Amino acid sequence: VTFVSRGFLLKQKAFLKLYLLEIAASPKDYGSVVLDDLRAKFKPYGYSPSHTELYKTYKELYKQGFVKRRSEIKGDPHENIQEVFIYYLTEKGKDELETYRKLMKVELERSIGILQTALEDHYGPVRK
Amino acid sequence: VTFVSRGFLLKQKAFLKLYLLEIAASPKDYGSVVLDDLRAKFKPYGYSPSHTELYKTYKELYKQGFVKRRSEIKGDPHENIQEVFIYYLTEKGKDELETYRKLMKVELERSIGILQTALEDHYGPVRK
Repeated sequence: VTFVSRGFLLKQKAFLKLYLLEIAASPKDYGSVVLDDLRAKFKPYGYSPSHTELYKTYKELYKQGFVKRRSEIKGDPHENIQEVFIYYLTEKGKDELETYRKLMKVELERSIGILQTALEDHYGPVRK
Repeated sequence: VTFVSRGFLLKQKAFLKLYLLEIAASPKDYGSVVLDDLRAKFKPYGYSPSHTELYKTYKELYKQGFVKRRSEIKGDPHENIQEVFIYYLTEKGKDELETYRKLMKVELERSIGILQTALEDHYGPVRK
């Protein structure tokens, strides 16, 4: 098995990258909706990704040529309007997603293995 | 549920602290044996805690008054000898371990929950 890293648990940026690539593969929501959805999803686990962390990850994907963005105008044109950005995968991004999905499966399972081992060591066999 | 952190996955230092407190509760091995054992345990998961990380954690536990250490002489007295340190829990450390065990159970389960959610989101239902 080849590991992405040989360190401790996977990094937040690697974790968010997988979500953002997948979301950009069938783009419909703009950045702040993506952020709200991720926050709602992980709320039961006390994890609330920050605005900064999300946009840093988008920016890296953009610089590496994996995503592009299109702007849309949101809101009633006679009232407040807002320009929002929807990120979508480039051809290069589609290849990256395919490769990255495989790497990250190993990486997620590796990290879960570390934590499960500790849970069993300290609190006894885990109910499956 | 009260979480130790509201961030992403638990930190390596928090993870090592639990092992080191537990090991100090029934002390028999000195630092480098503890390190080797942890490395062997987590080798299947590609995690190899560093010497620096381990001793930084011991040092913090020592400064906080949770562990003390006694020295032992290792090796044949007529040949090479080496002074090694065995860490053991203080009374304060025993209380800390009791509290910390409870916190860390929540924290380990919280982190596993984040990773399992991602595994299921990206690769479908996880076989139990």
